[in-house]
Amino acid sequence: MEIFIEPIGKLINEFSKLPGVGKKTAQRYAYKIIDMSESDARAFADAIIGVKRKVKYCSICGNFTEKETCEICSTRETDVICVVKEPKDVVAIEKLHEFKGVYHVLHGVIDPMDGIGPNDIRIRELLARLNDGKVKEVIVATNPDVSGDATAMYLARLIKPLGISVTRLAHGIPVGSEIEYTDDVTLTRAFVERNQL
Amino acid sequence: MEIFIEPIGKLINEFSKLPGVGKKTAQRYAYKIIDMSESDARAFADAIIGVKRKVKYCSICGNFTEKETCEICSTRETDVICVVKEPKDVVAIEKLHEFKGVYHVLHGVIDPMDGIGPNDIRIRELLARLNDGKVKEVIVATNPDVSGDATAMYLARLIKPLGISVTRLAHGIPVGSEIEYTDDVTLTRAFVERNQL
Repeated sequence: MEIFIEPIGKLINEFSKLPGVGKKTAQRYAYKIIDMSESDARAFADAIIGVKRKVKYCSICGNFTEKETCEICSTRETDVICVVKEPKDVVAIEKLHEFKGVYHVLHGVIDPMDGIGPNDIRIRELLARLNDGKVKEVIVATNPDVSGDATAMYLARLIKPLGISVTRLAHGIPVGSEIEYTDDVTLTRAFVERNQL
Repeated sequence: MEIFIEPIGKLINEFSKLPGVGKKTAQRYAYKIIDMSESDARAFADAIIGVKRKVKYCSICGNFTEKETCEICSTRETDVICVVKEPKDVVAIEKLHEFKGVYHVLHGVIDPMDGIGPNDIRIRELLARLNDGKVKEVIVATNPDVSGDATAMYLARLIKPLGISVTRLAHGIPVGSEIEYTDDVTLTRAFVERNQL
């Protein structure tokens, strides 16, 4: 005999598919749903369906949107484009309220080990956006890892000849942390990219 | 402008209602749903709806069931009843494959501080089950805290006069742990409930 009756077992199984959720946590989530009112559970289910039904990708930048073109592409200055790997990177940067330009979401980075080449991510779409001569700078904000760096180098080689400035986010010691506890790679980059005082 | 478009914000909000889930985790879960196929997301939503629609409480013991009477009540010996606070306690005990009797889920414990008296939990239903004279023992497996202990005492006072044995799960040092690190209350109970060797 199964310990859980079928509908509960099914829901636990679904919750287990979420990142970082094990059987025990999935079980707690399922109990919470059972304790909810019928209408609250319905709203939860509708939110899941709704996100699949309504969320599309912006035809210009590739970020999440409900319309053809996203809010950011329709309202902001287009002379600076910040290139990121995924839509969630846009969220992280938007939270700063620092960047006033537009984005370009690659939906991946070049990673030969995973068989992902330049044609598998949205590089062609990025180059097409640079054709009108209005873009002055492309900020490459891919992650500071091997594939993120490789993608940045690749983009720089393509874009610089167009007379557009290509920059990359600075690497270095995180603000508030200590030199003693900074990892070697980061500390090395902090030396290499040191600034004039 | 909101950082998240409406359907994503809504889903993050729903996930935030799960126990122990903050904004950041809810966000990760929402991205996972966005990455799912339409049919997988539909299955997830259906599991939520299904649990609310199909899960009922057993008319005898109060445990979760899809039918009128649960699997345990329909198939097992009824001479020993294990009394627990919540359905999830049944799951914890069933995992042991040790207990062969039936359960009675109180759906709460007596807790005057929270305004929960004996009539607010399923004590009347328990007493009704004892009327046929077949039950020989009632094992009270409420949690070893103030309200759990109080409920156990209350039940013992009601049930013992019926000539039915009332027992309580043993408290003591957890197997595999050390005396040095056992909390004072547990260690005290281990002394009080010490066994003859």
